Amino acid sequence: MGNLVWGAVNNFFTYETTKSVVVKSWSVGIISRSVQLLIITYFVGWVFIHEKAYQTIDTGIESSVMTKVKGFGYHQDRMMDVADYVYPPQGAGVFCIMTKLIMTENQYQGRCAETDNFSCKTDEDCHKHYGSILSNGVITGVCLKSEANNTGQCQIEAWCPAENDRVSIDPILDVRNFTIFIKNSIRFPLFNVTRGNFPTTMNASEIRSCKYHPETNPFCPIFRVGDVLSYTGQSPENLTKNGGEIGINIHWKCNLDLNIDNCVPKYTFTRLDAPFARNAISKGYNFRFAKYFKTENGTEFRTLHKAYAIRFDVMVTGKAGKFDTIPTLIQLVAAFTSIGLGTVLCDIILLNCLKGADQYKAKKFEEVSEAQIEASLAQSPGSQLSLKPGIKSSYDSGAVSLAASDTPM
Amino acid sequence: MGNLVWGAVNNFFTYETTKSVVVKSWSVGIISRSVQLLIITYFVGWVFIHEKAYQTIDTGIESSVMTKVKGFGYHQDRMMDVADYVYPPQGAGVFCIMTKLIMTENQYQGRCAETDNFSCKTDEDCHKHYGSILSNGVITGVCLKSEANNTGQCQIEAWCPAENDRVSIDPILDVRNFTIFIKNSIRFPLFNVTRGNFPTTMNASEIRSCKYHPETNPFCPIFRVGDVLSYTGQSPENLTKNGGEIGINIHWKCNLDLNIDNCVPKYTFTRLDAPFARNAISKGYNFRFAKYFKTENGTEFRTLHKAYAIRFDVMVTGKAGKFDTIPTLIQLVAAFTSIGLGTVLCDIILLNCLKGADQYKAKKFEEVSEAQIEASLAQSPGSQLSLKPGIKSSYDSGAVSLAASDTPM
Amino acid sequence: MGNLVWGAVNNFFTYETTKSVVVKSWSVGIISRSVQLLIITYFVGWVFIHEKAYQTIDTGIESSVMTKVKGFGYHQDRMMDVADYVYPPQGAGVFCIMTKLIMTENQYQGRCAETDNFSCKTDEDCHKHYGSILSNGVITGVCLKSEANNTGQCQIEAWCPAENDRVSIDPILDVRNFTIFIKNSIRFPLFNVTRGNFPTTMNASEIRSCKYHPETNPFCPIFRVGDVLSYTGQSPENLTKNGGEIGINIHWKCNLDLNIDNCVPKYTFTRLDAPFARNAISKGYNFRFAKYFKTENGTEFRTLHKAYAIRFDVMVTGKAGKFDTIPTLIQLVAAFTSIGLGTVLCDIILLNCLKGADQYKAKKFEEVSEAQIEASLAQSPGSQLSLKPGIKSSYDSGAVSLAASDTPM
Repeated sequence: MGNLVWGAVNNFFTYETTKSVVVKSWSVGIISRSVQLLIITYFVGWVFIHEKAYQTIDTGIESSVMTKVKGFGYHQDRMMDVADYVYPPQGAGVFCIMTKLIMTENQYQGRCAETDNFSCKTDEDCHKHYGSILSNGVITGVCLKSEANNTGQCQIEAWCPAENDRVSIDPILDVRNFTIFIKNSIRFPLFNVTRGNFPTTMNASEIRSCKYHPETNPFCPIFRVGDVLSYTGQSPENLTKNGGEIGINIHWKCNLDLNIDNCVPKYTFTRLDAPFARNAISKGYNFRFAKYFKTENGTEFRTLHKAYAIRFDVMVTGKAGKFDTIPTLIQLVAAFTSIGLGTVLCDIILLNCLKGADQYKAKKFEEVSEAQIEASLAQSPGSQLSLKPGIKSSYDSGAVSLAASDTPM
Repeated sequence: MGNLVWGAVNNFFTYETTKSVVVKSWSVGIISRSVQLLIITYFVGWVFIHEKAYQTIDTGIESSVMTKVKGFGYHQDRMMDVADYVYPPQGAGVFCIMTKLIMTENQYQGRCAETDNFSCKTDEDCHKHYGSILSNGVITGVCLKSEANNTGQCQIEAWCPAENDRVSIDPILDVRNFTIFIKNSIRFPLFNVTRGNFPTTMNASEIRSCKYHPETNPFCPIFRVGDVLSYTGQSPENLTKNGGEIGINIHWKCNLDLNIDNCVPKYTFTRLDAPFARNAISKGYNFRFAKYFKTENGTEFRTLHKAYAIRFDVMVTGKAGKFDTIPTLIQLVAAFTSIGLGTVLCDIILLNCLKGADQYKAKKFEEVSEAQIEASLAQSPGSQLSLKPGIKSSYDSGAVSLAASDTPM
Repeated sequence: MGNLVWGAVNNFFTYETTKSVVVKSWSVGIISRSVQLLIITYFVGWVFIHEKAYQTIDTGIESSVMTKVKGFGYHQDRMMDVADYVYPPQGAGVFCIMTKLIMTENQYQGRCAETDNFSCKTDEDCHKHYGSILSNGVITGVCLKSEANNTGQCQIEAWCPAENDRVSIDPILDVRNFTIFIKNSIRFPLFNVTRGNFPTTMNASEIRSCKYHPETNPFCPIFRVGDVLSYTGQSPENLTKNGGEIGINIHWKCNLDLNIDNCVPKYTFTRLDAPFARNAISKGYNFRFAKYFKTENGTEFRTLHKAYAIRFDVMVTGKAGKFDTIPTLIQLVAAFTSIGLGTVLCDIILLNCLKGADQYKAKKFEEVSEAQIEASLAQSPGSQLSLKPGIKSSYDSGAVSLAASDTPM
């Protein structure tokens, strides 16, 4: 019994390695080594140096954006400051600078005539507009005609008077000189690294006086609106008139194996509503809001604003990488595995294209056919049985082989 | 010396390949080829065709959402339009449609009685509520009793009169007929591809007149609120009464190897606050805001609104894939590697289950024991030394082997 | 012809396996088995148990956040409630609690003197400020001097009177006792699993009365502001005075193979603007907004607010994993492949370091040189041709070999 266990242990601690054929041939040798060199170059150059596959990557960034707009503009002889033209006011990552306002003042709840598109001659003309959502209010079905004229406008129940948004109004042109201050902090939770979008060494007066420029001043957090618009290739005239959406992308790509000071933001600017430029509808960007007032006797009235605005979306993307053992090991395994693939190509050449290919084949392949096996079994039916325990113990059993080394993969 | 270098170079350009045993047996042959077929099928069918593993994937999308609501509703005999019931007004991806408003008008700073839950008989009854945050203001500790009645309400310092949110008010029922226009543009920075959520061939009147339907009109950007609510399986009655949160997910899954026109959005609708449906608290969605007014003499007063609203979250997710050499190569390596794994299974069958397994073992394995080696060393102690330089130069040294081909992996 | 096809089919269903050398040596055996054990341990322990590589991971979460602040504070003898100090009011994931307000009441459009930094003696002194964006309005170029004094202030066209933000005002100190109720629902679209941030078994009174505590009450959705600030390590005094940005991160890491009740949120708190703590500029967080009023005769005037606020960003991150066949198979392939790598190390030891290394080499490597092949070709030029068809059919052709098993990788 003890002998059996000893035998099993003895047979367990054996080592299996593949039997190899070494071909001393310059032609195949050079091809084989070249393929291996190519694979090694790919892994070292692309996978390790360029793609930095030896790093753990953190893409789950925590980011916060604070913005502040400064500047003054004139809109229909009114001086507009930040509190007037920026909405929402709290300095979030997404904000609008209103460039043109169509104001309809002193609207009260009531009934009045629609402004246009709803002309009529009889009440019946208005009935077909019942339930319309393109009007300024609920169609009552009555046609309001002026004394002199035979045509009139349908009546609506709404905030009256109705808005007329076909008036021509000059936008705030000074918007080009407005500045946007962007404060962006980012955290890579995996590495517990926190970074801000401008150097901590910058003092107050430096920050106040600088202007962002992609080459000369890439870390200044103050952006002139006119510059931002020109980086996107859009004309400020069109944008201030019809509104639009501008994306300010702050991209962080940090290699934390290097000095942390190299972990800096990169700004890019795009016009986000570009795919709709060719659609007749939905050109630009506008929205409606109202300011509410009360008369002395408590009746509520409002000023409706249709605001054409440039919306800025500050979007933060980023990833950080740092050396880690696990991905390094995985990539090394992949590299070694790939080097082995080189033999596939060389085998095809060796066994098919070279002079003496059949001799190589005879060396590489050893044939065993069922006929041979059966013949040997028939010769010594007893010896097979007597051999079995001995041979059995000589080699790995299948179960161990599977996890071990029958076939080095 | 030159001879030595030449020898080393000569030995470097050799090619090593594994020696193989070819088993001419139908049973193992069929199993082996079937396993290989299975693996190839998996890689071709699943990995390459279904999962498109030959593509580089861009998931870091830049997206912008613009929304515009249209429609009119009546709330307590007041006509409400977009400027009245949509908050925030700027047409962002997240917005609320207020469906029920509890308004407490003409609130002034002062002291008054709480509305309910704070009844009292003596001042002491109110003292226990000191610091409460469930009241409408700061508890002063005084119990305000009416002449006739023995019980009263605790006094608060607050905007007076206090809000009573237990009143029963009808919500805006017309909300079902409101429409939401969604303009979504998406950019895949890796491929510099920009797409909009409706075709550029759609003209203004087509867009204005269409309504989204998942089957008949899947690219219309105009959504009827009633339809959206029904797609989520929620009853509009409950939602307009208590409020709720609806998610509109725009999913982009683009195969840029095909025509770009196939890169289209897919909309899904969910009720986001569904997991809280069973909690007694926090049913629905509401918030408070105030409109501020001033009297003639400059005293500020306000109208407090408790707004029950349906909040819509337009969420954009997406990824785009395009053929790339790197992932294709990696997957091919993985495929070839996996095919080799088939031999593990076949070896187990061949060496354990087949008739003549021991003969196969004898063919596959060549045994060498320490005893044999020691015996051969003892026989020719001198010859070993004399042999060494010759043999040494015949084979790779370990260092080269490691990176080369001792063991094809 | 039929014979030829039969021969091809017969030769196709053959099985190729590597010929192996079994070394019965304790030393190499122990090393080999140890390396294999190490690799298996790594895969089982790290890859499968720790990293759960057998799971499909869903990171594309859909999340919705609803917040509600409660509490009362005094600011310059005014009682402030939620509608007064929370902005934006709709209870989104990002909101500000205003802690200090510098109000400039009754501003009208007009011309007036700047408050400070713009002192002058002559009009020329003001000309150099033309176009300044640091003023409260547009510099007119006129110097307004008081009768008595020789120095004055530059005139601006603006909302007058100009804001003076150098006044010292006490912030709302009660902000510490405010509470934030956070309702977060999350959906993993891949698995169609929806979860809320507090158990459905919690009833209304339990939720109302609890306070979040990381250890004693980790699932209570009500957070005391003072506690949140202390978890970030910041002093409430500084934050209420200058404002700041606080991140509340809700992290979900769910193993859906276990009971769904283990899928719970984890809260962490950080100060988001921490990287700017050392910069002189941009300390804290503030923004400006205005409330608009109208006089009896229709002139608009406003109250400008400079609000110092604590901004809370509720950020939701998460991933869920569930057992899936595909990643399990991929990892098993990787594991088996890696086990084969153990032979690289063992081969180096066996062939270089052991006693009798050259004998092992002679066993492992079989040499074939071009000279031998050429010699055998020269000996029997005819026999080669006659042999060819026979040998050819005995082995795989290169094309089949490639996809099959010439080199098990």
